[in-house]
Amino acid sequence: MLNITRRQFLSYVGIAGGSSAIMKASVAMGMMGHDTYAGPVNVAPANKKDKQSVVILGAGIAGLATAIELEKAGYHCTILEASHRAGGRNLTVRHGDKIDEMGQPQTCRFDNQENLFFNCGPARIPGHHRRILHYCRALGVPLQVKANSCKLAYFQDDESFGGKPIRQIEYNTDARGLLSELLWKSADASTFDQLLSEEDLAKLMQFAKSYGDLSETGKYIGSERAGSTTDRMLQYPEVNTPIELKAMLNSNFWRGGLLGAEVYDWCEPLLEPVGGMDAVVKGFERHLTSKPVLGAQVKKIYNHEDGVEITYEQNGQFHTIKADYCFNNIPAYFMAGIENNFSETYQAGLNSIKRGHLFKIAYQMKERFWEKEGIYGGISYTADPIAQVWYPSHDIHANKGILLGAYTWDPKASAAFEAMTPSERLVVGAKSGEKIHPGYSKYIENGISIPWARMNHQMGCGMRMGKEDFDKYYHVLQKPEGRHFMIGDQISHHSGWQEGALASSDQALEQLNKMLNASVKTRVSTGKDAQGAQYVS
Amino acid sequence: MLNITRRQFLSYVGIAGGSSAIMKASVAMGMMGHDTYAGPVNVAPANKKDKQSVVILGAGIAGLATAIELEKAGYHCTILEASHRAGGRNLTVRHGDKIDEMGQPQTCRFDNQENLFFNCGPARIPGHHRRILHYCRALGVPLQVKANSCKLAYFQDDESFGGKPIRQIEYNTDARGLLSELLWKSADASTFDQLLSEEDLAKLMQFAKSYGDLSETGKYIGSERAGSTTDRMLQYPEVNTPIELKAMLNSNFWRGGLLGAEVYDWCEPLLEPVGGMDAVVKGFERHLTSKPVLGAQVKKIYNHEDGVEITYEQNGQFHTIKADYCFNNIPAYFMAGIENNFSETYQAGLNSIKRGHLFKIAYQMKERFWEKEGIYGGISYTADPIAQVWYPSHDIHANKGILLGAYTWDPKASAAFEAMTPSERLVVGAKSGEKIHPGYSKYIENGISIPWARMNHQMGCGMRMGKEDFDKYYHVLQKPEGRHFMIGDQISHHSGWQEGALASSDQALEQLNKMLNASVKTRVSTGKDAQGAQYVS
Repeated sequence: MLNITRRQFLSYVGIAGGSSAIMKASVAMGMMGHDTYAGPVNVAPANKKDKQSVVILGAGIAGLATAIELEKAGYHCTILEASHRAGGRNLTVRHGDKIDEMGQPQTCRFDNQENLFFNCGPARIPGHHRRILHYCRALGVPLQVKANSCKLAYFQDDESFGGKPIRQIEYNTDARGLLSELLWKSADASTFDQLLSEEDLAKLMQFAKSYGDLSETGKYIGSERAGSTTDRMLQYPEVNTPIELKAMLNSNFWRGGLLGAEVYDWCEPLLEPVGGMDAVVKGFERHLTSKPVLGAQVKKIYNHEDGVEITYEQNGQFHTIKADYCFNNIPAYFMAGIENNFSETYQAGLNSIKRGHLFKIAYQMKERFWEKEGIYGGISYTADPIAQVWYPSHDIHANKGILLGAYTWDPKASAAFEAMTPSERLVVGAKSGEKIHPGYSKYIENGISIPWARMNHQMGCGMRMGKEDFDKYYHVLQKPEGRHFMIGDQISHHSGWQEGALASSDQALEQLNKMLNASVKTRVSTGKDAQGAQYVS
Repeated sequence: MLNITRRQFLSYVGIAGGSSAIMKASVAMGMMGHDTYAGPVNVAPANKKDKQSVVILGAGIAGLATAIELEKAGYHCTILEASHRAGGRNLTVRHGDKIDEMGQPQTCRFDNQENLFFNCGPARIPGHHRRILHYCRALGVPLQVKANSCKLAYFQDDESFGGKPIRQIEYNTDARGLLSELLWKSADASTFDQLLSEEDLAKLMQFAKSYGDLSETGKYIGSERAGSTTDRMLQYPEVNTPIELKAMLNSNFWRGGLLGAEVYDWCEPLLEPVGGMDAVVKGFERHLTSKPVLGAQVKKIYNHEDGVEITYEQNGQFHTIKADYCFNNIPAYFMAGIENNFSETYQAGLNSIKRGHLFKIAYQMKERFWEKEGIYGGISYTADPIAQVWYPSHDIHANKGILLGAYTWDPKASAAFEAMTPSERLVVGAKSGEKIHPGYSKYIENGISIPWARMNHQMGCGMRMGKEDFDKYYHVLQKPEGRHFMIGDQISHHSGWQEGALASSDQALEQLNKMLNASVKTRVSTGKDAQGAQYVS
């Protein structure tokens, strides 16, 4: 390609062909972000003579991925994990599993069946999250489609349509119809005649007609796209009376639920590991030589010129470990309580990361009643604090199913649930569920809830940095402090997603590569070799 | 409910509350068509003394369902099937299977793996097709989600955007954006001020802003909903340059592909039987006492006062079979060639049903290259005669996959493919595929095609009745002619779908129930019992 960069080429095309030429070229050249991914960073091989060592703090997804790439490059890895398990917020609970909530641990009472599970943290993978998909492939984690959008599921809001649940397909179809009718009216009134030629105006009306399924005269009178009030297999379809424009504008669904399938991370189809998201964690564990050291709470992190020194407590005993490098996956808001010798700016950056609040409920339902309503996955949206109800799209037509009975990131709604006992939460969730599915409660056999902001060793979910702090500190935290690299979705533009966690690992390992080029030189000149990791009790 | 019918109740509500009250009430009462389904017709039990008999012509889905319901009611069923297999157009081919095309039979050369299959006929089940879903449940056919819409898949048209493939998510997001911008402009210019209050106009602008992701000043400048040109995991997202309005209007995708997820039968999520659609056929076969008589070509159908008489040819031998009733699943356009004593009107009705043309190609691809583009199922749409490319959503990350390389109902496009040899079709299909995925051809290991209008014993797919004929004859064919009941998707409002076939069986069995009430009386008065079915060689 004429020895010019792709960006240069694009700017030439832009000059030649205008902005839409840029778009076409960028598609053709595979520059849409997710196309350019070529796999994780290849870490420069470790010094073979004296095996180099790394200590990884936290066995969350970023920590596990960092460990696996470093092991591949020949490093000796030690993974310290404060909780009783690996995975971090990638947590799937089944029969008998524990939700380690502060002060009120819960035990999962689902039936003892492997497919009755609850993904407490991440639960879906979009097709453009190339890093997590790479690991699913590389670690042998089987995937299946996770229906995230179901047009037969509902919108429910006490303030709209008398609180009655509305099928999303009706609302969606009517929104398109009403919008298109208004557009047609404007085109018909030649509101746009300064913008568009007569020919284009005519096309605009056809566009509106097609988009909204308008009548020949540009009226929206309902659409078969939303189904029929008759048995359309045997009779002519009769469309439902559409929502009136005023009622549509007064409703609240267009501010929220109507965008459920429009957000880039929620675009169909989404994927999930067969049998639960923790298959990813198990995949990492199968392929890692170093097994995470569990129940290991980090107390001190010291950067030295020739390595890092970490002190942790396990079963009341203190241990100190030295290594060449440290990759730190601990929630940054815990770092204020861990002794260290970081610079003020770096520590201020860590302090700027705030806790996010995610709350979920899962119910074991004795019947998959939603399937009788034509719902085979997807999400109903409600204005109630539970926010969302997710229907499983695996185990179709099985007897029972785990329904996600609440899913909210809203700090206020989460805080209300956090203040309740586990059983109070289940009652509140059931009341909201009743508004969407009358009779909901009678199907509930048991339930469990997870307030991430009250989980031991987590106390939050999804970093939250203010815009100002982001601009001020993000670039600081993207770079190592001495031999200490901060990782986790918290060090990404995309917290709350495993892809963000993996991207953080990617960038940290790239930084390590840069540093290694320098340190190799340093080492040659000083003749000093790095120490292998060793336990000092 | 006050002893009034539901429809009456709705009209009362309508009077009381206006049209949107009707809508709310109809949702609440479960009258949306798919909610009211309570299972197949319970056929009145057969006379126990002299086992009553039925002959079913054609082992397609309607024939198999009719047989299973009649067996349940105690009837003796004989199923005659002209071809070498049961299932009709529910046909899944795998390694070594035959596509019985007239004059040029094809053998499937896929690798011998059970998940390398090609659903030649039906391939997806919407959540509101309650009849087929009932049978999947009742017959123990495991289902999985079939991703039908993939926003990362492409639109491609030689006449639009220089023929370059466009990601659907970009086109979809930009269409919403441009539409909303126009709406905002109109609202801003108060074009609608006679229709809407000032408050509603303000809401309309907010609606447009939310729907299209407009800027604070109502401009569409691209949207993160379509992704980012930067690595959004690590950097601020930068949106793609949006399509210009004129280019959008000049493009052809809004006439077709943009509606791909809007049609009621294609609304997400769709389902498919695990391992191929013929799992439905196998499910019926497992549960039927009567096994279809294969290679049996019907030659004569005679209605008598006390039964029906069918003559068929099998291996050059003629056989005559008598039964109490006949349910006929044979494509109606074959009936002109089958001797019968039907009324002129009934025969004219049969003659009015025309052949539909469906053409498909399936390629075995040596790599699932589409997954590297973020595509995990769904459909790319093209203006080329192949019309659609479907990506499998099962066996994610496997080595190989079967790609649907053509799917068209267009009679002209199908006719062109029908005129070709099987290998010519594969070449033509590959050339079109190249426009969507450069390098497409090099992944092809082998392929197979199915032109339904050239298939022995089918010669078409999906009945096509003109509007006039429909009004004139459909109601005639919905009722029995003597003891002969016509069935199949051809006797439904929904041909080309298994649900239409099952609905035809439903209505025929309802007609039988009506007739039985009458004939029981008749029989009592004459003392004459129906003959059991018997083979007369």
